[in-house]
Amino acid sequence: MEKKAMTRAILDAKKNKGMRWDAIAEQIGMAPVWTASLALGESSATEEIAQKLCAVLDLGDDVADALMVCPLKGQWMEKTVPTDPMIYRFYEIMSVYGTSVKEVVHEEFGDGIMSAIDFTLDVEREPNPSGDRVKIVMSGKFLPYVRW
Amino acid sequence: MEKKAMTRAILDAKKNKGMRWDAIAEQIGMAPVWTASLALGESSATEEIAQKLCAVLDLGDDVADALMVCPLKGQWMEKTVPTDPMIYRFYEIMSVYGTSVKEVVHEEFGDGIMSAIDFTLDVEREPNPSGDRVKIVMSGKFLPYVRW
Amino acid sequence: MEKKAMTRAILDAKKNKGMRWDAIAEQIGMAPVWTASLALGESSATEEIAQKLCAVLDLGDDVADALMVCPLKGQWMEKTVPTDPMIYRFYEIMSVYGTSVKEVVHEEFGDGIMSAIDFTLDVEREPNPSGDRVKIVMSGKFLPYVRW
Amino acid sequence: MEKKAMTRAILDAKKNKGMRWDAIAEQIGMAPVWTASLALGESSATEEIAQKLCAVLDLGDDVADALMVCPLKGQWMEKTVPTDPMIYRFYEIMSVYGTSVKEVVHEEFGDGIMSAIDFTLDVEREPNPSGDRVKIVMSGKFLPYVRW
Amino acid sequence: MEKKAMTRAILDAKKNKGMRWDAIAEQIGMAPVWTASLALGESSATEEIAQKLCAVLDLGDDVADALMVCPLKGQWMEKTVPTDPMIYRFYEIMSVYGTSVKEVVHEEFGDGIMSAIDFTLDVEREPNPSGDRVKIVMSGKFLPYVRW
Amino acid sequence: MEKKAMTRAILDAKKNKGMRWDAIAEQIGMAPVWTASLALGESSATEEIAQKLCAVLDLGDDVADALMVCPLKGQWMEKTVPTDPMIYRFYEIMSVYGTSVKEVVHEEFGDGIMSAIDFTLDVEREPNPSGDRVKIVMSGKFLPYVRW
Amino acid sequence: MEKKAMTRAILDAKKNKGMRWDAIAEQIGMAPVWTASLALGESSATEEIAQKLCAVLDLGDDVADALMVCPLKGQWMEKTVPTDPMIYRFYEIMSVYGTSVKEVVHEEFGDGIMSAIDFTLDVEREPNPSGDRVKIVMSGKFLPYVRW
Amino acid sequence: MEKKAMTRAILDAKKNKGMRWDAIAEQIGMAPVWTASLALGESSATEEIAQKLCAVLDLGDDVADALMVCPLKGQWMEKTVPTDPMIYRFYEIMSVYGTSVKEVVHEEFGDGIMSAIDFTLDVEREPNPSGDRVKIVMSGKFLPYVRW
Amino acid sequence: MEKKAMTRAILDAKKNKGMRWDAIAEQIGMAPVWTASLALGESSATEEIAQKLCAVLDLGDDVADALMVCPLKGQWMEKTVPTDPMIYRFYEIMSVYGTSVKEVVHEEFGDGIMSAIDFTLDVEREPNPSGDRVKIVMSGKFLPYVRW
Amino acid sequence: MEKKAMTRAILDAKKNKGMRWDAIAEQIGMAPVWTASLALGESSATEEIAQKLCAVLDLGDDVADALMVCPLKGQWMEKTVPTDPMIYRFYEIMSVYGTSVKEVVHEEFGDGIMSAIDFTLDVEREPNPSGDRVKIVMSGKFLPYVRW
Repeated sequence: MEKKAMTRAILDAKKNKGMRWDAIAEQIGMAPVWTASLALGESSATEEIAQKLCAVLDLGDDVADALMVCPLKGQWMEKTVPTDPMIYRFYEIMSVYGTSVKEVVHEEFGDGIMSAIDFTLDVEREPNPSGDRVKIVMSGKFLPYVRW
Repeated sequence: MEKKAMTRAILDAKKNKGMRWDAIAEQIGMAPVWTASLALGESSATEEIAQKLCAVLDLGDDVADALMVCPLKGQWMEKTVPTDPMIYRFYEIMSVYGTSVKEVVHEEFGDGIMSAIDFTLDVEREPNPSGDRVKIVMSGKFLPYVRW
Repeated sequence: MEKKAMTRAILDAKKNKGMRWDAIAEQIGMAPVWTASLALGESSATEEIAQKLCAVLDLGDDVADALMVCPLKGQWMEKTVPTDPMIYRFYEIMSVYGTSVKEVVHEEFGDGIMSAIDFTLDVEREPNPSGDRVKIVMSGKFLPYVRW
Repeated sequence: MEKKAMTRAILDAKKNKGMRWDAIAEQIGMAPVWTASLALGESSATEEIAQKLCAVLDLGDDVADALMVCPLKGQWMEKTVPTDPMIYRFYEIMSVYGTSVKEVVHEEFGDGIMSAIDFTLDVEREPNPSGDRVKIVMSGKFLPYVRW
Repeated sequence: MEKKAMTRAILDAKKNKGMRWDAIAEQIGMAPVWTASLALGESSATEEIAQKLCAVLDLGDDVADALMVCPLKGQWMEKTVPTDPMIYRFYEIMSVYGTSVKEVVHEEFGDGIMSAIDFTLDVEREPNPSGDRVKIVMSGKFLPYVRW
Repeated sequence: MEKKAMTRAILDAKKNKGMRWDAIAEQIGMAPVWTASLALGESSATEEIAQKLCAVLDLGDDVADALMVCPLKGQWMEKTVPTDPMIYRFYEIMSVYGTSVKEVVHEEFGDGIMSAIDFTLDVEREPNPSGDRVKIVMSGKFLPYVRW
Repeated sequence: MEKKAMTRAILDAKKNKGMRWDAIAEQIGMAPVWTASLALGESSATEEIAQKLCAVLDLGDDVADALMVCPLKGQWMEKTVPTDPMIYRFYEIMSVYGTSVKEVVHEEFGDGIMSAIDFTLDVEREPNPSGDRVKIVMSGKFLPYVRW
Repeated sequence: MEKKAMTRAILDAKKNKGMRWDAIAEQIGMAPVWTASLALGESSATEEIAQKLCAVLDLGDDVADALMVCPLKGQWMEKTVPTDPMIYRFYEIMSVYGTSVKEVVHEEFGDGIMSAIDFTLDVEREPNPSGDRVKIVMSGKFLPYVRW
Repeated sequence: MEKKAMTRAILDAKKNKGMRWDAIAEQIGMAPVWTASLALGESSATEEIAQKLCAVLDLGDDVADALMVCPLKGQWMEKTVPTDPMIYRFYEIMSVYGTSVKEVVHEEFGDGIMSAIDFTLDVEREPNPSGDRVKIVMSGKFLPYVRW
Repeated sequence: MEKKAMTRAILDAKKNKGMRWDAIAEQIGMAPVWTASLALGESSATEEIAQKLCAVLDLGDDVADALMVCPLKGQWMEKTVPTDPMIYRFYEIMSVYGTSVKEVVHEEFGDGIMSAIDFTLDVEREPNPSGDRVKIVMSGKFLPYVRW
């Protein structure tokens, strides 16, 4: 089973069960964003997680197998600049604040990067009287450039 | 004075004074990432902030004037996919987790986006025994799509 | 049901009923452009609107469900510069007058943007003896850049 | 005198005089957005307008000459997708609502386009208790496709 | 019926009837290039023309309906620079002589453009002893830039 | 002398003399569009033409030399899709009518192309009560594909 | 029959017959590279050649018909820079030696080009003790730029 | 001395001496195309060749030094598809005949490529009553893919 | 059988047999990376290797035939900059260290390149107490530029 | 001092001293490729390394300061696909063997990547009777994807 069919199967099951990502995530002991990325074919599961997810959603072994395959990531991006406004905002943030974050990180940590692999990302609702806010917390290990 | 010359002047003054972004930011009562974005020409200042910054760094009125101009943002990006590894990681995060964040935000808030204008971004060091981490906290007002 | 099939179903029903966008829009209490964007899969509906639209066009629950899904917007754009002359004119307007609008907006409102989310767009016929005109009225909330 | 130098001269004079675009526009009897587009080198002036503008800002004949040259338009756009958030919103509007406007215009007027040449664009402040809005009114002659 | 299937049906019927574009064009009272553009899905027909064309080629109402739909033009161009040598030559002409034509048109007509909408294009064979020539005659209404 | 400086010198001399392209062209016995393409650095001159042009405009030998150099053509095009509206229309014509012209040319001449080298292009004003038209006549030798 | 299906049919027949391109080419009296280009849908055949090719490979009239259609060339190139190493080398040669060939051709022939239409290309094996070589001989008519 | 200045110096000296590429090439014992590629900064010279070239053209040691530097090749190509018609024809040949050459080479030599490094390219005039032809002979070592 | 179906067949058989790439590679006497590249359709096999591989995985002659076809390489790359993080790192290495490797190779070997055809690539696990490492060893014949 | 001027200064000093990269590298106790990357502005130095390098090459404090700045990496890449043949081979290797390396790494290590930050790269000459080879050894820490 290809990742695309796997995603379709999971989204259909999720809809039929009427479950939200956070409910599914809780059942398999993972975070909501990561759980969604697994379902959308951008992450891969351990066997244990794959089976838990299939148990929660009553899906078969072919889905579990597909969940364990390491994906070719980012295939949904057909254009180098995404047109979807929700996703584009990340591109805009990179374009407007990317050099500033680079300045501050280098000053604090030296030459290196924030890992996007040893990395977690959580989304929270931040209540606010003038309109609730989306809070995104990223945490990535700082990786200093090796000088050899 | 063009923004480029302004940036050069500020970076030189900052180096001569031996000040970090957080020290400058504290002096002008703003956050370090925003202060850097102002210096790099991606944000604009109120007159009060512009004068405070020039006072802290002993810079003239031409710099203060340039700080108040609304910039044409993102001009540093000569390529649609940035090659700098530190900045590229944001592109990668968007490519790998963009669709997942979209799923989770829509489920929680409905159709709309996280604003990149009514928006703040802070960088923190997260101490960790297996290597300190870069923590990035973004907070953007949720803007629901108007249906008219 | 995917958005594409949903669009196909709505366009066929619309044709069979011989209804114009403004007639459908009036029936569901919304504006014509927005109604078209919903049908073309660029907007999402509340449950109430989805059911009204399906009632007007005698369409089933699968269409109503698809109408409520938050779309991945802009997927029709396979090229970064659109070739369709009607749509290209917006690109041209941005290219020729974009910097001027930016100047005028910043002078009037300060640094910030016109929202494309808290936003409405209406098309009207403007009678004119030397040839009728297309009048497009956009109204977007001004969002000032937060300085933090 | 090249258009770039002309723009620089006008912006400096405007700043020294402390005049807004609408004030200058009123003096030369034109609209603010068009006046800005002339100053930024995206439009060309008649001799009369060129001289009026130079009179208002105390600028010389070389500026007047440059104002009358037909410009190679859109040269500021170094990337096919602009990164400046204020200008990008027009790209986003085209991407999200372009096909819908096309539907509505074709239904009302038949096959053709809204001209971007026989065209005007005005920006207004729309007072609103929950935050003022930017109102943009475009008016372009409808040009039907000739069938020959 | 989608435009693609419509094109297939027309090309097959044309082949079976052994008719050339100019013969078909004559039957429906239009020009050959325009007739081909209609068949290839780049133009739309009035009801009268659509029915005439279907009568000439013995095609059904679904083809006639499809002929009347306003097309999303230029979809065949998957690359911004076309690789087909016959079509590429237009790109080359634009690249080599575009700025010169612009000079001459502006000098003769002032600031504005040659319309590509109120526009006709005809192809003729120009007999020549050293090899016949392709003569292309374009005629587009001059549209002066409105200054407002 | 580089081509850019040559162009600058010719445009300045042309302005000082108050001559139009057609007047200059007549003096050197060539067509206006070709004369402009020579001045803009997209064509090269024979020695005779180069000297005639310099005589007409009182320009020196360095200009004449530069006029004879075979140019690297199309360098002005920094983007694969030009933003200037006058020039873009050629791109649009290619995009909308390119496949139709191809059909008609192939049917009349067989497989091959219209040469863009053994090629002339003339611009004429076509008087018209509902607005004058720009008439462009291209004539290129038909080159049949060699089958070997 | 579309060109793609035609190519598939020819490649299958060629494989079943165990014939090389040069053997097929000899049977139809043409060169191997051209014969391959015909089979791959980049060239078109006369009726005589089409029938000979179908006779050699025992293929039907639908293949012969498809061979005679003038193709939309270069459609296999989905990327502007080809990734296949054998084909990429031509891009590299153009990039490294293109300007040099231009210099030498212009010096010898004047301003103009080597035709890619009145053009032949042959591939030969050049025996060599330190490793055989691929010899490619291109011959294209020199086309001088017309000055008009 | 940078390569660009070196090229300028060589082209000026060549012009002053009134020498053609083939004359210079003969003096230094190399081929004309290669000699031009050296002068244009796409190839590098041995010390012996560098000194010979400088002797022939009366140029100094700084030019000789620059000639020996290994260049970053292809920098002149600012666009992935070149607009110069003479150079573009190579792109067109690759696009139209690239897959055919690939077929024929693989059939004759097996999987591998024609080297563009162990490679020579010569340009000759091929006299022809119906117009002289440009003959280009490329010879590149066949490099079979290593299977390991 | 097309390469894509061949890949699918091999991956399925590999999964059913529960064999790793190194085990398959050992059975056919080749290296793991090369064996994977053969299965993924980026390399071609000799008849002997093709038959061995099919024997190991119990696959038929159509797979063997497909394995021997010279592939059009790199077709999986739909974007010029790959989004998959594992593969992107090679792009990043080229971007960050490409010019440095070029410097060092030229200094040691002179002008030329490392062949990517007469080339092997092996991947090894490098045990390391602070986290195992991926070791990649590339070996390509140095090819000096021919000067002719 | 900007990185570009720093690079120029180092390359000039290196040439005057007649030192190779490996000699300089030995003096500062680092590897040749890394030393070159530092000089070319793609890496940053500790204060100790910066001073050692300046001592070896008799360069001033401004160079030392510039060496310590964290660079915006990859700025030399003006095109997403590099044209220099030596550097392009890395792009080709990624294109041809990227998916295979991905397969083998994932099978051995699980989902994750080879770090390009905690990474070293060495170039060696590999003597070989049929032509010496370039050996490139990359070693990057394996970073497993965090599942959270």
